[in-house]
Amino acid sequence: MVIIRDEFSIINSITPSSLKNKDVLVGIGDDAAVINSPKHLIVCVDTMVEEIHFTKQTMGLEDIGYKSLAINVSDIAAMGGKPLYYLVSISIPNAWSDEEIQSIYKGMEQCASLYQMDLIGGETVSTRGPLTIAVTALGKMESGRFTKRSNAKAGDIIFVTGSLGDSAGGLDILLNDYIKHTDDHSYLIKKHQRPTPKVDLGLQLAKINRVSLNDISDGLSSELYEIAEASSVSMMIEEEAIPMSTSLKNLYGKDQSLQYALTGGEDFELLGTMPSEDFHQLQQLTEQKGWSITQIGEVILQEDKPEVFLVKKNNPILLTKGGYNHFSEER
Amino acid sequence: MVIIRDEFSIINSITPSSLKNKDVLVGIGDDAAVINSPKHLIVCVDTMVEEIHFTKQTMGLEDIGYKSLAINVSDIAAMGGKPLYYLVSISIPNAWSDEEIQSIYKGMEQCASLYQMDLIGGETVSTRGPLTIAVTALGKMESGRFTKRSNAKAGDIIFVTGSLGDSAGGLDILLNDYIKHTDDHSYLIKKHQRPTPKVDLGLQLAKINRVSLNDISDGLSSELYEIAEASSVSMMIEEEAIPMSTSLKNLYGKDQSLQYALTGGEDFELLGTMPSEDFHQLQQLTEQKGWSITQIGEVILQEDKPEVFLVKKNNPILLTKGGYNHFSEER
Repeated sequence: MVIIRDEFSIINSITPSSLKNKDVLVGIGDDAAVINSPKHLIVCVDTMVEEIHFTKQTMGLEDIGYKSLAINVSDIAAMGGKPLYYLVSISIPNAWSDEEIQSIYKGMEQCASLYQMDLIGGETVSTRGPLTIAVTALGKMESGRFTKRSNAKAGDIIFVTGSLGDSAGGLDILLNDYIKHTDDHSYLIKKHQRPTPKVDLGLQLAKINRVSLNDISDGLSSELYEIAEASSVSMMIEEEAIPMSTSLKNLYGKDQSLQYALTGGEDFELLGTMPSEDFHQLQQLTEQKGWSITQIGEVILQEDKPEVFLVKKNNPILLTKGGYNHFSEER
Repeated sequence: MVIIRDEFSIINSITPSSLKNKDVLVGIGDDAAVINSPKHLIVCVDTMVEEIHFTKQTMGLEDIGYKSLAINVSDIAAMGGKPLYYLVSISIPNAWSDEEIQSIYKGMEQCASLYQMDLIGGETVSTRGPLTIAVTALGKMESGRFTKRSNAKAGDIIFVTGSLGDSAGGLDILLNDYIKHTDDHSYLIKKHQRPTPKVDLGLQLAKINRVSLNDISDGLSSELYEIAEASSVSMMIEEEAIPMSTSLKNLYGKDQSLQYALTGGEDFELLGTMPSEDFHQLQQLTEQKGWSITQIGEVILQEDKPEVFLVKKNNPILLTKGGYNHFSEER
């Protein structure tokens, strides 16, 4: 019943000739990997499925690989951790060639190089369905402080890194085959295909005594609710404060850009809360480093039934997880 | 583009109310898990895909869950490790109900209970393809000794645990809908649906100074070649010594049973090599514990181009990875 592609030829072609971390005791090629582990180990799994998270139209082969690792690195960044290792389970349809699969691994390695990560294991299996890549990433907590979703308290400021909505704009461009590509188009496409997880910023944020942190994979509204619910707090954010790129606003105007920021997702920026005095102290450093971090609102109340409000022209509007003018289409 | 099932209701229903290991610092429900890690951490990923590794005909829902974790536990056993934690990435087609998915998680928990493992993370995603379950398992090495495939040396004995071929026999029964089920049928079916990874035996074997170890997922021939190639040695095994269950021989006769043992796979027993003096010492303990471990041959030569021979009626026959009378159908 089992259809097996020549796993060894792929494994040989992707096995790195040298390792970046000296703490890999047994790497690719045995039943399991063994590492000299950091004391506080972070571990997460994130999966990309063809036709659900990407198509060959929206992502180049190397982009698919790059992003499948980047979304995991982003989870580690949201725990204030430093990424170290990754393992890959890839389910391959017959129609995909070995060369295409190798391009995907090449893209993963491009992401891994940025963060000094080593590929230490995984497997390839056949599937009669779409290409499916499940990546497991391991990292270490350096600060000993947990940047948990449940850390928010009334009075905290709410912040995000970078700009929001770009990835959704890029996806729209890719799906709609715009004839002419300006620099604005290219910028948004790159933000969709090659997001940059905010590892250095996450490591810095984890030094603060109490910070809650999420990475923005599902859109700002949804991520705000995750923190609000885990912390039992309500929140208020300001429309005018939400950072959006000039490229996004040029191409999509104010309303659509806001929609993308609130519900588009896949920006892989960091969202969180911290005491305002810590935020003011942090700003000197972020200016020095050139990091983009913006206050977008405040945690307003401690309560059992958390709500998130968007202040739009001085009117607070109740947000849902799926945005502000419709209920979520998620089931 | 993203279709999302209500991930939270599934996550809530599978989140354990208590943890078996006190070293879970952040469990399910944040961007990533954080553990107080053992010094030598073992990590592996193994995936089961519907229509490739199972169908609803061959496996009950809980069996699917049980086995998707068991195959990972078996990898940890083959590293001489103790399993501790697991994470699950499950890609779910629309046709599968939440209740079915919960039954799969229930089966995983049944396996996890046997080995005192905790579910610490993962995610559910939608797919337009078959159900796909990628499990990441973490464990610890207790002995500090590596049971690597490359540890075999000329003069070592070759051993296997348990009996081989049962899983392939069970699969044949399931695929062919035998009308009457005897105890022999039930025994083989159970061996296919609920394999028992040999964790205690693996932990014991890791105490030996030098042992090579593999778990038998792809069939004896293929696994022997993995050790032979990793160690640059040739091997000789005896047909008569290969342990096969009475149930298998009753139902399939000698020749077909041998075929299943050599190429059937999915037995998840352990295969390995060690110095013969260590094997003799070990036998007292295995008898005492009731563990089944059988010498099936010897490592005969150190050489660059490894070969594995099966002695059949005093004639050595060259095995291929796919068995002895045909070349592998794998590509």
